[in-house]
Amino acid sequence: MYSLIIAESALELVPSKMASHPAVANQAKRMGKKPQEMLLDISYHFGAMRGLQDAYRRGRPDLIHICLMNSIYTPLFLQGNLQIFIHTRDDRVIAIGKGARLPKSYQRFVNLVEQLYQQKTIVSEGNVLLASKQETFSDLTNRLKPKKVIGLSRIGDKSSFEGVAEALPEGGCMVVGGFPRGHFNSGTVKAMDTLLSVHDLPLEAHVVIARSIYEIEETSKP
Amino acid sequence: MYSLIIAESALELVPSKMASHPAVANQAKRMGKKPQEMLLDISYHFGAMRGLQDAYRRGRPDLIHICLMNSIYTPLFLQGNLQIFIHTRDDRVIAIGKGARLPKSYQRFVNLVEQLYQQKTIVSEGNVLLASKQETFSDLTNRLKPKKVIGLSRIGDKSSFEGVAEALPEGGCMVVGGFPRGHFNSGTVKAMDTLLSVHDLPLEAHVVIARSIYEIEETSKP
Repeated sequence: MYSLIIAESALELVPSKMASHPAVANQAKRMGKKPQEMLLDISYHFGAMRGLQDAYRRGRPDLIHICLMNSIYTPLFLQGNLQIFIHTRDDRVIAIGKGARLPKSYQRFVNLVEQLYQQKTIVSEGNVLLASKQETFSDLTNRLKPKKVIGLSRIGDKSSFEGVAEALPEGGCMVVGGFPRGHFNSGTVKAMDTLLSVHDLPLEAHVVIARSIYEIEETSKP
Repeated sequence: MYSLIIAESALELVPSKMASHPAVANQAKRMGKKPQEMLLDISYHFGAMRGLQDAYRRGRPDLIHICLMNSIYTPLFLQGNLQIFIHTRDDRVIAIGKGARLPKSYQRFVNLVEQLYQQKTIVSEGNVLLASKQETFSDLTNRLKPKKVIGLSRIGDKSSFEGVAEALPEGGCMVVGGFPRGHFNSGTVKAMDTLLSVHDLPLEAHVVIARSIYEIEETSKP
């Protein structure tokens, strides 16, 4: 079994101090939701997010959705050899259920995650689809006890997708940033064994995930 | 230069006979759009699509969006070595502009494609982002004149992602289905040189695209 953590993800609910902003309130009304039960989404809340600390690294459920689409539809996950966790910047950890099929429709995905924030667990046909709890990145890695934790970052040691797959043992954990720009926090890096760079170009998290999982499959082929 | 065609894509405007359906009319009102200027989307129009021919293969802009996210953020495309076309089931061809950055936000992508249906060309900062015209699949391949056309399908000859990349010469064209299930039409297959199967499992189009492009990069490395 391999693990993937999408770390410091730009996924959170609308902060309470933004709830009364007209753009947020109007969207909530249109969607029939309460403002503070909606996911923060810079596509809709750009104006309202002005002045929010680290705004450029927040409110990107679209990134997380595409990362998950590139994780859960892979043979590695479909065949039960990959467990996936979303760690958020406010230290929530969302575990993706074994074999979970999450919606390709973005709006359905958002609705599901908003429901998760209310219920903490989403069960579908008797199986846990998503489960959420408060947990820091280092608490998560301490709990999982992976054989090795490899973070992928442009500022890591020069490697390749194949190199990462070769360096990652069965039982190892790969960490990709769930934010649009910048680097991992020092606390996150501290909980890693190695930080590797997979390409000369800066690549999007979803591209890094797709290729790394593919190379893990290739490398672990019998 | 390599080409990618996402063929028979489940992308179209709301058919005129559906425009007055309450679910469609309400959504149009909420979005401030005309019903027939909106993309057909089974997530919103499921009820209204009842009775529509081939409904199970239509109205999936979400699939096309994820396929594009896995194409345009790759080094192959970013470095100008991949041209991408979306061929739709109603024989429209959308060319993706060189180096085009399309929105990761699904709703922004939908708005952009709806604008494309009105204007036929979307220009951003002096460059063509998207251009659309009526064209059949075989007219497109006749126009592109690729050195080889390889279709990827579960019912093709057994191969692998690496095998596809090795079989595809520089100047070749790869074809992936832009529909949620079923197979290419016979007319599409006729315009291909080969039909290859890349995996024992049925894989989603976006996974197939991500891995094939990666292997093309790996194979064409100097």
